[in-house]
Amino acid sequence: MRKVYFDHASTTPIHPKVVEAMLPYLKEHFGNPLSLHSFGEGPREAVEEARAKVAALIGVRPDEIYFTASGSEANNMAVKGIALMNRQKGRHLVVSAIEHQSVLNATQTLEKLGFEVTRVPVDKYGLVNPDDVVAAIRDDTTLVSVMHANNEIGTIEPVAEIARAVKEKRKGIYLHTDAVATVGTLPVDVKELGVDLLSLAGNQFYGPKGAGALFIKKGTRLMPLIDGGIQERGRRAGTEDVPAIVGLGVAAELAQENLAERAARLIPLRDRLIERLTTEIDRVYLTGHPALRLPGHVSICVEFIEGESMLLLLNMQGIAASSGSTCTSRALKASHVLMAIGVETALAQGSLVFTLGESNTGEDVDYVAEVLPSIVERLRQMSPLYSKS
Amino acid sequence: MRKVYFDHASTTPIHPKVVEAMLPYLKEHFGNPLSLHSFGEGPREAVEEARAKVAALIGVRPDEIYFTASGSEANNMAVKGIALMNRQKGRHLVVSAIEHQSVLNATQTLEKLGFEVTRVPVDKYGLVNPDDVVAAIRDDTTLVSVMHANNEIGTIEPVAEIARAVKEKRKGIYLHTDAVATVGTLPVDVKELGVDLLSLAGNQFYGPKGAGALFIKKGTRLMPLIDGGIQERGRRAGTEDVPAIVGLGVAAELAQENLAERAARLIPLRDRLIERLTTEIDRVYLTGHPALRLPGHVSICVEFIEGESMLLLLNMQGIAASSGSTCTSRALKASHVLMAIGVETALAQGSLVFTLGESNTGEDVDYVAEVLPSIVERLRQMSPLYSKS
Repeated sequence: MRKVYFDHASTTPIHPKVVEAMLPYLKEHFGNPLSLHSFGEGPREAVEEARAKVAALIGVRPDEIYFTASGSEANNMAVKGIALMNRQKGRHLVVSAIEHQSVLNATQTLEKLGFEVTRVPVDKYGLVNPDDVVAAIRDDTTLVSVMHANNEIGTIEPVAEIARAVKEKRKGIYLHTDAVATVGTLPVDVKELGVDLLSLAGNQFYGPKGAGALFIKKGTRLMPLIDGGIQERGRRAGTEDVPAIVGLGVAAELAQENLAERAARLIPLRDRLIERLTTEIDRVYLTGHPALRLPGHVSICVEFIEGESMLLLLNMQGIAASSGSTCTSRALKASHVLMAIGVETALAQGSLVFTLGESNTGEDVDYVAEVLPSIVERLRQMSPLYSKS
Repeated sequence: MRKVYFDHASTTPIHPKVVEAMLPYLKEHFGNPLSLHSFGEGPREAVEEARAKVAALIGVRPDEIYFTASGSEANNMAVKGIALMNRQKGRHLVVSAIEHQSVLNATQTLEKLGFEVTRVPVDKYGLVNPDDVVAAIRDDTTLVSVMHANNEIGTIEPVAEIARAVKEKRKGIYLHTDAVATVGTLPVDVKELGVDLLSLAGNQFYGPKGAGALFIKKGTRLMPLIDGGIQERGRRAGTEDVPAIVGLGVAAELAQENLAERAARLIPLRDRLIERLTTEIDRVYLTGHPALRLPGHVSICVEFIEGESMLLLLNMQGIAASSGSTCTSRALKASHVLMAIGVETALAQGSLVFTLGESNTGEDVDYVAEVLPSIVERLRQMSPLYSKS
């Protein structure tokens, strides 16, 4: 059976060059980078080389990169770390309503600890309006966190405008962006964005799982999430996961070399899939912005059907896709992102997300476009909602 | 040159069977365990299989095991998670003075957030007295955390007695033990220990870096350290590092098969090294308990010399060792553990830690025992302290 992996937003395959680079650190170069002997040297140098590569990808200094085990950890480290460090200055945070769960749930934890959080709404495309962010700022606001692109609907946010507007309104507020969906997929230049903190994850751009990073602008203080040893300059304890870090470095290097080409190849595939699905199937609606959109990201809602049923039938045809975000799809909750852009609860149940990547071709697109209509038809025939309409 | 790796407490080599088991999850089985399609199935099953193996190693239920990226993360998750969840009940914690930095520094962070911490002293062997722990308990104590064995001096703590004494004194206090140094090295049975939470790390027993776990007794509530998706039943967000988790599982399985044999082989090697170093070199003192001691653990203080100089000269002879703990050795601070057992600051500078493992032989022991005396002599001749004595 044909296999089509259209779920790159959940996790990407690992590039063979990444795996190859990791192997020596799983085998002979097993030492601890902190060790004061020859076994530590190679791993230590490898970690710093990876740090330089990740820094280069987003245009920052290597000593502004802090490795984590995931994008979620980086998001928690940023949001909780800044909030807790600045708790004497103020206890108010501003985030968008469509942030990733790792940001939103971190703010819920902070609420339990006495913080207040304003969740700025978005428009029907999922766009955050910089004016709304500025309007949410209070005298006791210490952090604004708005994601660079949304993982569920693909919309790219005006982070640079938001950062500029916030800094104009008041200096001293920290800007964080969750760039897990963009780093390695789109050019990301921290200086252009104007943020103080930025999260990224290797498994979003052909790197390994278990490797993420947080950019922290030099001079920015935060409370560590994981206290302990002096790893990562005392900001994130625990023996460095050298193989994963090395893999992240190589993935960053490969991304930097191929960014423009990767996006240029994916955009027409994305647009062809959107075009075919929304015209060839009745009552299918694109979610997210049609143009300000991640290169390989196709998200739709199919009326009268549940996303999970479609996923199961697609899977039987060899097609891997998502519904809502991977992190919530097994929780069977309506996506907070779709609610925030005003999709009705019933329609939101019919969410499907196809995220394309390196190995996908036009044939994959056509295969999915040919398979989905019959799946939709079959499910609608079984749907009491559809027959009633 | 002969290479002798005597730094297993820093990190162990990864067992070839562990690497072999990880490879498919770095290559073809790259999917996200949360995905509702075939690419997620294999990884999902592999993670649950690993969970069962880790659970079996310490005698608990698989659904009581929560994967983390390190022992330090597990320690932070336990200490901060219990303290913050129970903050309405009380804000007092009891730990030993010789806990790993990840526990001690986590308690310092909690102090900044309004908690109070009692650090129970130890005797000259590094032993915690259960009576001292009980005496430290207050009405507002919510957590007691005492490590199972100390990584710097090898002393094994009477955790079962401590747990029993604490629970007798007052029910409802949570018991955590950092068992990073013992799990996979000594038989660890959670029921015998009587603890509610226990931390372990794969890279201490021939598993990969990037994989640790926290045992949380069923029914125990804590505040997550990393908020976000529903991974690890909502208690630790972030895409599971499937290859590392699989590796941890295989390492746990191998440990369970070979535990008794591993310890039986290491103890005589350990004792031979202790015997030779303390008798053949003048003014060398064993630190930690002579008998209640980790199987492969040799820690000494060499008078009139700095540990770091010895490490460098040992390294030139192909011998890899540590001074104090790896996490602090680069920080050039006197070890808090040696201070706690009453070693004078000057003598503590001459700390050397040899930790033996699977691949080591009697020849390695003899090589080190033959090389160290001349290194000590050479350094002492350069030492103003020694010439003055």
